[in-house]
This record gives sequence, structure tokens and C-alpha cells, in this order.
Amino acid sequence: MIHPTAIINENVIIEPDVEIGPYSIVHSGVKIGSGTKIGSHCEIGVETELAKSKELNIGKNSIIRSHSVFYSGSSFGPNLITGHRVTIRENTVTGLNFQVGTLTDIQGDSEIGDYVRFHSNVHVGKGSKIYDFVWIFPYVVLTNDPHPPSETRSGIEINKYAVIATMSTVLPGVVIHEGALVGAHSLVNRDVLADTIVAGIPAKLIGPTSRIKLSGSKDVAAYPWRKHFHRGYPEDLVNAWKLEFGE
Amino acid sequence: MIHPTAIINENVIIEPDVEIGPYSIVHSGVKIGSGTKIGSHCEIGVETELAKSKELNIGKNSIIRSHSVFYSGSSFGPNLITGHRVTIRENTVTGLNFQVGTLTDIQGDSEIGDYVRFHSNVHVGKGSKIYDFVWIFPYVVLTNDPHPPSETRSGIEINKYAVIATMSTVLPGVVIHEGALVGAHSLVNRDVLADTIVAGIPAKLIGPTSRIKLSGSKDVAAYPWRKHFHRGYPEDLVNAWKLEFGE
Amino acid sequence: MIHPTAIINENVIIEPDVEIGPYSIVHSGVKIGSGTKIGSHCEIGVETELAKSKELNIGKNSIIRSHSVFYSGSSFGPNLITGHRVTIRENTVTGLNFQVGTLTDIQGDSEIGDYVRFHSNVHVGKGSKIYDFVWIFPYVVLTNDPHPPSETRSGIEINKYAVIATMSTVLPGVVIHEGALVGAHSLVNRDVLADTIVAGIPAKLIGPTSRIKLSGSKDVAAYPWRKHFHRGYPEDLVNAWKLEFGE
Repeated sequence: MIHPTAIINENVIIEPDVEIGPYSIVHSGVKIGSGTKIGSHCEIGVETELAKSKELNIGKNSIIRSHSVFYSGSSFGPNLITGHRVTIRENTVTGLNFQVGTLTDIQGDSEIGDYVRFHSNVHVGKGSKIYDFVWIFPYVVLTNDPHPPSETRSGIEINKYAVIATMSTVLPGVVIHEGALVGAHSLVNRDVLADTIVAGIPAKLIGPTSRIKLSGSKDVAAYPWRKHFHRGYPEDLVNAWKLEFGE
Repeated sequence: MIHPTAIINENVIIEPDVEIGPYSIVHSGVKIGSGTKIGSHCEIGVETELAKSKELNIGKNSIIRSHSVFYSGSSFGPNLITGHRVTIRENTVTGLNFQVGTLTDIQGDSEIGDYVRFHSNVHVGKGSKIYDFVWIFPYVVLTNDPHPPSETRSGIEINKYAVIATMSTVLPGVVIHEGALVGAHSLVNRDVLADTIVAGIPAKLIGPTSRIKLSGSKDVAAYPWRKHFHRGYPEDLVNAWKLEFGE
Repeated sequence: MIHPTAIINENVIIEPDVEIGPYSIVHSGVKIGSGTKIGSHCEIGVETELAKSKELNIGKNSIIRSHSVFYSGSSFGPNLITGHRVTIRENTVTGLNFQVGTLTDIQGDSEIGDYVRFHSNVHVGKGSKIYDFVWIFPYVVLTNDPHPPSETRSGIEINKYAVIATMSTVLPGVVIHEGALVGAHSLVNRDVLADTIVAGIPAKLIGPTSRIKLSGSKDVAAYPWRKHFHRGYPEDLVNAWKLEFGE
């Protein structure tokens, strides 16, 4: 299951049923969980001074698509799924079933919870904290330097179930509270209250997320999204969400 | 013309005069038209549940540059030209001479006409319809979900000769009519009338496209662009455009 | 130090102590300075009609990370450092210690000074001029066509010490003067005065850069940034900056 052209360095732990595609490279200090599939042309476990002698740990049953680059010193829970050409730098820790789209670039030192979903081409500045069930859409940038360039790092925090729509920038130190929605093409320069919508440049409060109705409906709210959107989540979780909303 | 390190799987049809570069992979079910050149480090014909057993058809005399990834189930007319690291997912159909720049990511299920031009780093959401001679510039995102995340798909439509300038977002379901121009860094949340300019966040009507004059001129309109811009189009087409404008 | 899977074509000059990683390709007409390290899966020296028979010159002690693509006809001073999947097209000339982040795409015919820093995913249109010590942050686009598509090229100019924050677009022909700061998510459609801040869509004058204070301070200005930010610059330069500010 390991292609003969894959280059596996010494000091790599590969559990059973792992596939590694053609022309991929696995550096020293990497542990790959059972059932994981790594595509072609990847570079896994790039060594860096910023994570010296630290292991890279990829959870079981993961899928890493072609041309992706992972640095040493990070740890991923089981069922990680990536698109193509993803970059994840050192000292990032993620929970279960993190999904991250093509071209996304995570700069390191971030904490990412369970069932977090990043779409294509998301840029996560160092030191971001992203909690369970957050969704981030394409071309969103999470920053961390309040007056670049400087030595100050002020990472952002995004809480459970929050959604950041495409092409939005979140400025350093901002906290986005649970269930909030940042509209497309927004610049978020202050904290966002739970279950509210903000949008614009700079982003302003639009109202409660419950104001947005499902397409084609006049009275069914589109948020909290976990009331109606269940694809890709385990059955027990979906059942808990149904109970939460009295279904 | 097929580099010895290229990996060509079974059930691939390669017509005469095809070049395939070093370290590229062609999966089963791919047909490559005569005269096509595929660069190095590509992955062509990635299989997916979303296009099961469907062929990938690459038209003749195409150029696919290095590190690009094409999924199965799509079909490209002749003279396709791509930049590097392009991703095109399943069930996308394009016409003649589609040109698509470095890092562009087409998510699948889209219809793209003849002589369409995407510059670098364009993101096309699933289900987009883009007609002949459309131009899309870098970091434009075409969305499709009116209240993400959800199961609703409301693809956008961009009509002939329209131009979307850099860093603009088009919201779900929007129709951009023939010859319209979306200014740079705009958020388009409603339909755009033919031959008009919109710009801003959200985008507002600025006026007719004829208001914009060619650089250095006071009275020669820059639009319709096919009056003055002919590079890369075939002679008979350019002649037809000249006739159209009485030249 | 040259991996056995690296493909080195004829007419390549490789100085001592150069490393070239697995599955990388070096085309004809490339000169690589001593001490330079090129990562895996790169394509260096892509030939193009736009730089026919012109050499690609990579300065000594450079680091080019994996999956990067460099065209022929460009020249880089010593100590170039790139992220992954960088694209640099033909006829670009850079000074000393140019640093350029992952996914950045430089379209060619640009002049870039000494100690310039591009973060991830910057897009530089053809014909840009960028002077010493400029900083450009993620998802910034530098354009060049005043009415796309057209044959007009009106490159932008960014002067010493200027900073362009994330997700900003600079329109064709704009001159950003020394020490200026463009705020995040801005659209710059006119020249920016020295040592001033602009922000917004379109960008408006906010005031002098000295108005922004260092995080946690009420009276220490964050700009000019070279007063307090010295990481990665040589000691003699830092000493000159200290003298300049009377320290």
C-alpha cells in the first residue's frame, strides 16, 4: 500500500493499512495512524527549528490529498480529511474529523477543535483558537499582528458553531462568540456576539442569526445550522442535535 | 514524449503527439487528445464517488501546467490552457480554448463556455454557469450556498463578455448579464444588468460600461472590450467583432 | 546533496554546497549559487517565449521550499527564502534577502528591492516596482490593467518601508509612498502619501502612521516599524536604524 516511489525516512511509525501515494516523502519523526491514506507528491513531517525533535502525529483513518505539506510538531485527531496542496505548519493541534480544503494554509501554533470545517484557501494566522463545529469558507484570513510587522501576537478565537463566510478578514484578538455568522466579504474588527450576524467593512451588527430563513421558506430559520444540516456528522451527534431542538 | 517517471494507469487513451512530464500520474478512465502537453507533478483523473466510472476527457492541443489536479468525470474542449497547481473537480464541462490561471480551484458541476478566461486564483463554487468570452480576474470567488452550511445549491450565472475584476465575491444565485463589469473588490448580492458597471460592498450601479474610456483617451470607450482587445482569439472571430463594430 | 531522483538538465550551473530535493526538476539555463537549498517537487527554470534563452539566476545561500515553480529569465539576489508552492514568472529581478511566502504568485517583469517581505498568497501583477524593506501581507493583489482585459499595463509602485495589510487590492498605476500603511481589506485607487494610513473601500486617508501605538502602550508609536521590529535583518542595518532614531 506504500508506493515504491514514496520515500519513507528512518524513525517513522506506520500503523497497519496505511496507503502512501507515488512521489510522496515522509520525514523522520512521523507517526501515521491505521487506515490513513496519503496521496501523491506530499511532504509529511518537514523539520523546523520551531518544533525541534517533536513528532508529527496523524490520526487513524485520515485522508491527506496530493501535494500537501505537513510540518513536524503537530497532532491531528482521527478522520482528518484534507484537500490538495494544504499546508499545516508546526505545533498545531486538532480534534476529531477536522476537514480542511484545497490550498488552505495553517501557519502553526493553533488549536482546532472537533468537527471543524475549513473550505478551500483559508489562511489561519499563528496562535488561532477554533472551537468545535466551526465553519470557515474560502479566502477567509485570520490575522494575529495588530500593527504589522511586529513581535506582538494576538490570535483570534472562534467559538462553537460559528460560521465565517467567504473572503472575510478577522483582525487580531477578535473573539467570535458561539453560533455567530460573519457575512461574506467582511472585515471583523471587534468581538461578535453569540448568535448574531455581522457584515460589512468594517463589520456591523445586522441582527440575530435567526433572522435568516431557509431558502424558499418564510419562517424556518437557517440558523442554528445544526437544526437542518447534518451531512458528514455521526449519527449520535445528529440525534443529540435533534433532541436539543425538540425533534 | 511520455517521461519514463510518469505513471500511466490502465484504461487510459492517449492520442498521438501527447507529452506527459516527469512525476505526473494519469489514473484510469482518462482520454487525452492529440498534441496535448501535460507538465510535471500532475495528477490527472482522480477518481471520486461523485463521478463514478465517468471518463475525464481532455481536448486536443491542450497545455496543462505542473502540479495540476483534474478529477474524473469532466470534459474539456480543445486548446485548454492552464497555469500551475490548478484544481478542477468532477463533472465540469468546458468549451473551446478555456484558459485558467495558476492556483484556480473549480469545485465541479460547472458549465463553462468557449474562450472563457480565468486568471490566477479564481474559486468557482459548484454549479456555476459561465458563458462564452467571460473574463474573471484573480481572487474572485463564485459562491453557491445562500446560508452556509446547508444543502441548498444556488449557482451563479455569468453571461457573455462579462468581466469580474479582482477580489470580488459573487453571492449565490446572482445573474451577471452580458457585457457587465464588476469592479475590483466588490460584493455582488443582486443581478447585474447588461453593459453596466457595479462596484462596492455591496455592489451598486455605477453606470454604463461605456463610461470607462481607454487609458490616455478622452472619448474611446474601453468597453465592450472586444472592440480593442484581440490577443489570443482566432482571426475569424476578431474579424466578426470588427464587423460588429463597423470597422 | 542532489537527490538521485532530481532531474538536472544540461546547461545548468550548480555552485558548491547546493542541495536539491527529491523529484525536483532543474531546466536548462539555470545558475544556482553556492549554499542554496531547493526542496522537493520543484520546477526551476521553466522555459517561456517571454524570456527566450535568458538565464535564471538564483543567488547564494537561498532556500526554495517544495512545489515551487520558477521561470527562466529572472534573477534573485543572495539569501532568497521562499515558502511552498511559490510561482515566480519571467524577467523578475530582486535584491538581497527577498522573503516570499507559501502560494505567492509573481507574474513577471517586476523589480523588487532588498529585504522585501511577502507573506503567503500575495499576487503581484506584471510590471510592479517594489522598493527596499516593503512588507506585503496575505491575499494582497497588485493589479496592472486599468480596464481589463486590455493591452495597457500600468504597474504599481510601492516605496521603502511601506506596509500593505492583508486582503487589500492596489489598483493600476497607484504609487504608495515611503512608510505608508494600507489597512486590511482595503481597495487603494489613488496614491498614498508617505507615512500615512489609508483604509476602506475605496481607501481613505485615516491620518499619520504615528497615530497607531504599540499594543499595550499609550504613547509608543508602532510606526515607523523599523524602530522596534528587527527580526531577520543584519546587525549593521539594525544599528543604522537605531542611530536614525537616536537610540
